[in-house]
Amino acid sequence: MGIIVQKFGGTSVGSAERIMHVANRVIQEKQRGNQVVVVVSAMGKSTDQLVDLAGKITSKPSKRELDMLLTTGEQVTISLLALALMEKGYEAISYTGWQAGIETEEQHGNARITNINPEKIKTELDRGKIVVVAGFQGATKDGQITTLGRGGSDTTAVAFAAALEADKCDIYTDVTGVFTTDPRVVKNARKLAAISYDEMLELANLGAGVLHPRAVEFAKNYKIPLEVRSSMEDERGTIVEEETSMEENLIVKGIAFEDQVTRVSVIGLPNELTTLSTIFSTLASHGLNVDIIIQSTTNDKKTIISFSIKTSDLDETISILEQEKSSLKYEKIESESNLAKVSIVGSGMVSNPGVAARMFSVLADNGIDVKMVSTSEIKVSTVISGEQMVTAVDALHSTFELSKEAAQV
Amino acid sequence: MGIIVQKFGGTSVGSAERIMHVANRVIQEKQRGNQVVVVVSAMGKSTDQLVDLAGKITSKPSKRELDMLLTTGEQVTISLLALALMEKGYEAISYTGWQAGIETEEQHGNARITNINPEKIKTELDRGKIVVVAGFQGATKDGQITTLGRGGSDTTAVAFAAALEADKCDIYTDVTGVFTTDPRVVKNARKLAAISYDEMLELANLGAGVLHPRAVEFAKNYKIPLEVRSSMEDERGTIVEEETSMEENLIVKGIAFEDQVTRVSVIGLPNELTTLSTIFSTLASHGLNVDIIIQSTTNDKKTIISFSIKTSDLDETISILEQEKSSLKYEKIESESNLAKVSIVGSGMVSNPGVAARMFSVLADNGIDVKMVSTSEIKVSTVISGEQMVTAVDALHSTFELSKEAAQV
Repeated sequence: MGIIVQKFGGTSVGSAERIMHVANRVIQEKQRGNQVVVVVSAMGKSTDQLVDLAGKITSKPSKRELDMLLTTGEQVTISLLALALMEKGYEAISYTGWQAGIETEEQHGNARITNINPEKIKTELDRGKIVVVAGFQGATKDGQITTLGRGGSDTTAVAFAAALEADKCDIYTDVTGVFTTDPRVVKNARKLAAISYDEMLELANLGAGVLHPRAVEFAKNYKIPLEVRSSMEDERGTIVEEETSMEENLIVKGIAFEDQVTRVSVIGLPNELTTLSTIFSTLASHGLNVDIIIQSTTNDKKTIISFSIKTSDLDETISILEQEKSSLKYEKIESESNLAKVSIVGSGMVSNPGVAARMFSVLADNGIDVKMVSTSEIKVSTVISGEQMVTAVDALHSTFELSKEAAQV
Repeated sequence: MGIIVQKFGGTSVGSAERIMHVANRVIQEKQRGNQVVVVVSAMGKSTDQLVDLAGKITSKPSKRELDMLLTTGEQVTISLLALALMEKGYEAISYTGWQAGIETEEQHGNARITNINPEKIKTELDRGKIVVVAGFQGATKDGQITTLGRGGSDTTAVAFAAALEADKCDIYTDVTGVFTTDPRVVKNARKLAAISYDEMLELANLGAGVLHPRAVEFAKNYKIPLEVRSSMEDERGTIVEEETSMEENLIVKGIAFEDQVTRVSVIGLPNELTTLSTIFSTLASHGLNVDIIIQSTTNDKKTIISFSIKTSDLDETISILEQEKSSLKYEKIESESNLAKVSIVGSGMVSNPGVAARMFSVLADNGIDVKMVSTSEIKVSTVISGEQMVTAVDALHSTFELSKEAAQV
């Protein structure tokens, strides 16, 4: 007997019928003798519908008012799920983010949780109630409603698991777990039984999309074991935790990839200390996310800075750099679109030299030109031609034997 | 320059286009130099849609969870109206009921306001902002979300007008004002320029439906002048206030009526002190509303109690009375359905004896049998056959010369 936090995403609660189904899932856990806190997202496409409604009124909505609007989505779900649990004979009570004690900074649209006061929820759990909490939302100290940004409901669930010292946090979603790579692209992709927080973080950041990086970070910091599993099927999911005893013999755990990548090169920059910070602070202040950054200096003491961005950000990026031309004093800007990023991730890399080299030779063997490289202790990312992305992922998946079950499993 | 509270009902804010139109109305008032607080209801049929959604999950929803669900409706409207005002270049900020400082008792579904703390709103008004507040909702001292029940948005508006010592509270609705009777039934029905709180209270209680009685009571207690007016048209509405200097020569101010009335008679009751209280406490405890009550004692010391109810409550009423037969010791129950209630209302009646008599003779002249009568200082109600309702209203409207403009106007 312990405390379990469960999180159900928008698809899982997309209709009254599905909410009844989710109620059964929650009750199963309660019947095992656990205290259960359930975190839910807005129903199906309801958030999109609210955004569309605001779009009929203004093209540049105030973020405060947008938060006011969007947080109604989860509020609808919590009340319906509480009603479903009661209808099935269980005591339940719902709480919005502010009622649940989720305090955030005053950063509308993308607030970070600054504090959680779980006393009210503890009291209700001790009274035997199932507690249903609205994901994705909180409030500032002075009661302004905020949202946590993308993946916010995952973050809410993990944050509560931490605050309540829960035994486990189950993330129910529309896939059955974390895969070695996207199963829609590589048919041999295999579900992992376990993965470490760091590996999951790299995969999450690389766009694997199952769990939000902020939620994984939170879980890592507070050592909350996560399980990513399907709300529709009963099979076990993927455990995300500190020690992955199983599958540890796998050097590479997964392959992440994304297309619509563009490389931008700023050529002929003077070799000044402030150049790097000027470029990237300026881009960041316009909300442009830069991914891989490479700097090289040529013989004539001129510097080239290359970085990768989403292709959709190209026009804005170029225009900002051109505005800064007089202060940056570069010679010219070049860009190349239709690129893709392919990354291998695995904590076994640290103790296995030569993994990057093996990756590069697989790519070379397949006639794939590597245009940018970035490495971390547990990851190697390459930028290649978008047309060759699937070939690269297939070849790497088979080279690193990801479709094989690990020996101990 | 003063403070004006405006309230817009669900039809007035039923779509993005209508919300833009409402924004114009609000801005007009702001441009006159006033500080403006706007109270809004949920958009169009959205409350009904939420109730339907809950109905798919349970037939007996918890009132707490239903409040959680329904209050999202107004929260959507406040954010959209604030966005619309900003889009038109005005500073605006939205508040839910709990944010706006509306404290209620813990009576989910039908809470009364216990306190209003308008400091936050005053501050924002002084900063030049238009403040948009969610009607119909509040929160208990410990932060449970509650709703104020039917007509709750009217009550919110009037309560804020009182708390802010507003100069005026404008109730925008889908009719152009308060009429002498329902203009859909009597074609000569005339819009009143002014009406007193007490008259409005009687008309509201009698089903005229434009303003909720609780809101009128509140306005009367705090002497807030109300104006009932159309959100679509620019014409003046009806002023509701203490002194109605205009039209004071009218003895009868309006005629209210409703059908689907049933008379129930409990016959042969022993003449005991507790009989009345037993019957009506029992019915009240089942949530059954009794309207007119008449008691008469016959020669043999047996008592007859007759009362009127909504026809839809008849089966439950009979069944409850039958369960209590052994304690009440009555002989039999009779009932008559297909009845209607027709009432004349006017504060001039107090000083004009014979108004009731004149009403009865008009009804008699038209061959209408009066089955029950109830009177107050400013009202006479009669229960008659439902088929004769329109004839009665027409005859009374013309007898009391309600289609004529008052001399002073």
